[in-house]
Amino acid sequence: MANVYFDHNSTTALKPQVLEAMMPFMINQHGNPASQHSYGRNAYEAIEQARRQVAQSINAQANQIIFTASGTEANNFAITGIASNLDQAQLLTSQIEHPCVSNPAKAMQYRGWQANTISVDNNCQLNMQDLQTQLAVPTNLVSVMLANNETGAIQDIEKVVELAAAKKALVHTDAVQAVGKITVDFVALGVHAMTISSHKIGGPLGAGALVLNKRVDIQPLLYGGGQEKGLRSGTENIAAIVGFGAACALATKSLSDFGRHTELLRNQLEAGLASMNAIIFGQQAKRLPNTSFFAFENIDGETLVTALDKLGFAVASGSACSSASGEPSHVLMAMGVDADTARGAIRVSFNANNTTTEVNAFLIALKRALQELKQMTAVAA
Amino acid sequence: MANVYFDHNSTTALKPQVLEAMMPFMINQHGNPASQHSYGRNAYEAIEQARRQVAQSINAQANQIIFTASGTEANNFAITGIASNLDQAQLLTSQIEHPCVSNPAKAMQYRGWQANTISVDNNCQLNMQDLQTQLAVPTNLVSVMLANNETGAIQDIEKVVELAAAKKALVHTDAVQAVGKITVDFVALGVHAMTISSHKIGGPLGAGALVLNKRVDIQPLLYGGGQEKGLRSGTENIAAIVGFGAACALATKSLSDFGRHTELLRNQLEAGLASMNAIIFGQQAKRLPNTSFFAFENIDGETLVTALDKLGFAVASGSACSSASGEPSHVLMAMGVDADTARGAIRVSFNANNTTTEVNAFLIALKRALQELKQMTAVAA
Repeated sequence: MANVYFDHNSTTALKPQVLEAMMPFMINQHGNPASQHSYGRNAYEAIEQARRQVAQSINAQANQIIFTASGTEANNFAITGIASNLDQAQLLTSQIEHPCVSNPAKAMQYRGWQANTISVDNNCQLNMQDLQTQLAVPTNLVSVMLANNETGAIQDIEKVVELAAAKKALVHTDAVQAVGKITVDFVALGVHAMTISSHKIGGPLGAGALVLNKRVDIQPLLYGGGQEKGLRSGTENIAAIVGFGAACALATKSLSDFGRHTELLRNQLEAGLASMNAIIFGQQAKRLPNTSFFAFENIDGETLVTALDKLGFAVASGSACSSASGEPSHVLMAMGVDADTARGAIRVSFNANNTTTEVNAFLIALKRALQELKQMTAVAA
Repeated sequence: MANVYFDHNSTTALKPQVLEAMMPFMINQHGNPASQHSYGRNAYEAIEQARRQVAQSINAQANQIIFTASGTEANNFAITGIASNLDQAQLLTSQIEHPCVSNPAKAMQYRGWQANTISVDNNCQLNMQDLQTQLAVPTNLVSVMLANNETGAIQDIEKVVELAAAKKALVHTDAVQAVGKITVDFVALGVHAMTISSHKIGGPLGAGALVLNKRVDIQPLLYGGGQEKGLRSGTENIAAIVGFGAACALATKSLSDFGRHTELLRNQLEAGLASMNAIIFGQQAKRLPNTSFFAFENIDGETLVTALDKLGFAVASGSACSSASGEPSHVLMAMGVDADTARGAIRVSFNANNTTTEVNAFLIALKRALQELKQMTAVAA
C-alpha cells in the first residue's frame, strides 16, 4: 500500500487545525442554524464566521458566498441556475472544463441553449482568438476554469471577462483547483460567479461555495427550507462549513510558502523526468506550482499508477473523476496530444507536507517501475 | 443557554460510535474513491460497506441506494429527476410535505406539469378520498411523506401506493423523519423512491440518500464525474457516508428501545400538558413515538420558545425550516387549525438520551414560562 501521497489535486488530507475547529460541532454543538434556541443561534454564528473567512480568502464580500455541499454542486448551480434566468443564447465553456461544468452546459441544450466550446493550444492555454470568433454569435454565459486540474495550466480570466463584457455575456470561473495554490481575487478577476471547494485545500469534504456577484440573478438548484437567502436550501453542514472557513484562513496564511515549496519539489521532479525522456504536458504554460502531468512513450498510465502504488506512491492517471471511464483525458485530447500518449498520462500533485526526500524516492521508484513494465512489454512482444 | 435538548426532529447529536467510525476517514484515510491507488480503493470499500448498512436498515438492496449530501437534495432529486423522465401530467403531493418536496413540485409547473395537493384531516392524516378523486386526472407522480416532521403523524403509504398503482402513477415518500423512529421497510411500503437522511438519526450532516427502484428512470440533478453510476456526481463525502452507515446500523439495533423510551416520555409530557389545557395537535393520529406538537391559547410560540430557552430547554416552534419565515405552520393550516392557535405551536421531539427527570423539569419550566407570559400580556392589556 502507498504511503507517500502525491495526489492532492484529487483530494487532500484534512489539516489538524481544521479538524480541531470542526470537532465542537461534531461533538456537542448540534444546533440547526434555522432554530430559534441557543443551540441554533450558536450554529448560525459559526456559519457566519466561516462565511467571512471564506470571503476574505478570495477578496469577496461575505454576502457573496452561497454555501453548497461541494464544488460539483456549485458548478452545476452556476451553469444551470444562471442560464435559467437569462435569455436562451450561446453558452461557451472551454474544452478543458471539469465535467461538472461541461455536462450541465450540454444539458442546457435541451432548454434552448446552444452549448459550444472554446479550444486550447498545445500548452493548455485558452485560444483567445477562438473565444473572440465564437462571441460573434449572441452569447449570454461563458465559463472558463481558472486552473486546470490535470495540467495545472492557469487561464487569463481577466482577458476572458474583457472579451465577454464587450458582448455583455456573464462569466463564471471554476476556481476549485486554484484556491490555496495561487492568489485568487474575486474582484480582480472580474467574474460574475466563481466556484470554490473545501476538500482541495485541507478542509473537509461536504462544503463548497458559489461566489456570486449580487447583481446576477440565479435560480436555485435545491428548493426547500430557504437557507442561504432562499438560494440554496438544506440544513447547513455546520462542521464542514466551519472547517471550510478554517481551511481558507490557513490557506491564505501559507499561500506563498505553499507556492515556493511545491514549485521546488515540482522542479526537482521534472528535472528527473527530463532525464527519463518523459513528455511533460503544459510545461510552457503558466501553471499551478504543485502540479506535474507527464507520460512516457509506450507505457500505459493506469498500469504505471498501479505499479507505483505497490512501490508506495499514490499518483493519478489523469483526474480521479475521469479515471473510471477508461477514456483518454479530454484535456490532453483538447491539447492535441495523440490518444496513445494521453493514455500514458500520470499526474503528480504535491502539497506543503511533501518533501524532497519523497521526490527523490519517487524518481527511483519510477525508474524501477518503468524498467519492469518495459521488460514485461518486451516479453509479451 | 439551554442545556436540555428537545429538538431532535430538527437535528440530533452525532452518536459517539458514529464519530468513532468516521474519524479514520477524517484523519488519515483521505483517498478519493474514484482514484486507482490504495487510498482510493480503501475509500471505495468504505462507501460500499456503508451502502450495505444503509440498505439493510430499510430492507432495500445496496444497489438501490444513491448517496446524496442531504435529505433536501434527495427530495429535490426525486421530484425533479423522476418527473423529468416521465410524460407531463399531474404531480400530486400532500399539503403537509416539507418545502423540499412541495417547492420542486411547484417548480415542475414551469415544465408542463400540473402540481396539485392532497388534503389532510384535522388529525394530520391523508384524506384518501381526496387522493382517489384527484387521481381521476392523469397523474404520473405522487409524493407523500411517511411521517410528518411537526406532528409526527404517520401516513398509510401502502394505501397511497395501492390507489396510485390503479392509475399507474409512481410514488415517492420522504421517510427522513421516520427512519430510526419506526420500522421503515422499502419493500413493504411498495414505493418507487424514498428519501432518507443521516443527521436525523445520530449520523452526521452531509449525507442522505435516495432509495430507488431500479426500474425507475431518473435524470441527475448533479452532473460531473459520474459518481453513483452517473446518477449523482461529486466526490463522495466519505466520512459522512461512513457515519450514515454506522448510524443506520445503530438505529436498527435500538429501534424498539427508542420507541418504548420516547413514547414513555411523550406520554409523561402530554399528561402534564393536558393538566395545563394545552391543545395537542394530531394526538389521535398514529404518530412517531418521540414527537409532541402543542399550543396554548393566547400564547405566541416563538416567545415561548425563547422563554424556555432561557430556562434551559431547547424546543421548536414548528419546524426549524419554517421558523425563519414567520408564517404559521403550513401543516397546522392544512389541518384546519386557526392561524392564531397555529402561531402558538411548540414542538418537543425526544431522543433516546432524554430522561423522565428532564421532562418533569420541563413541565415545571413550562408552567413558569406560561405564568410569566400571561402576566406580561395582562400588564400590556
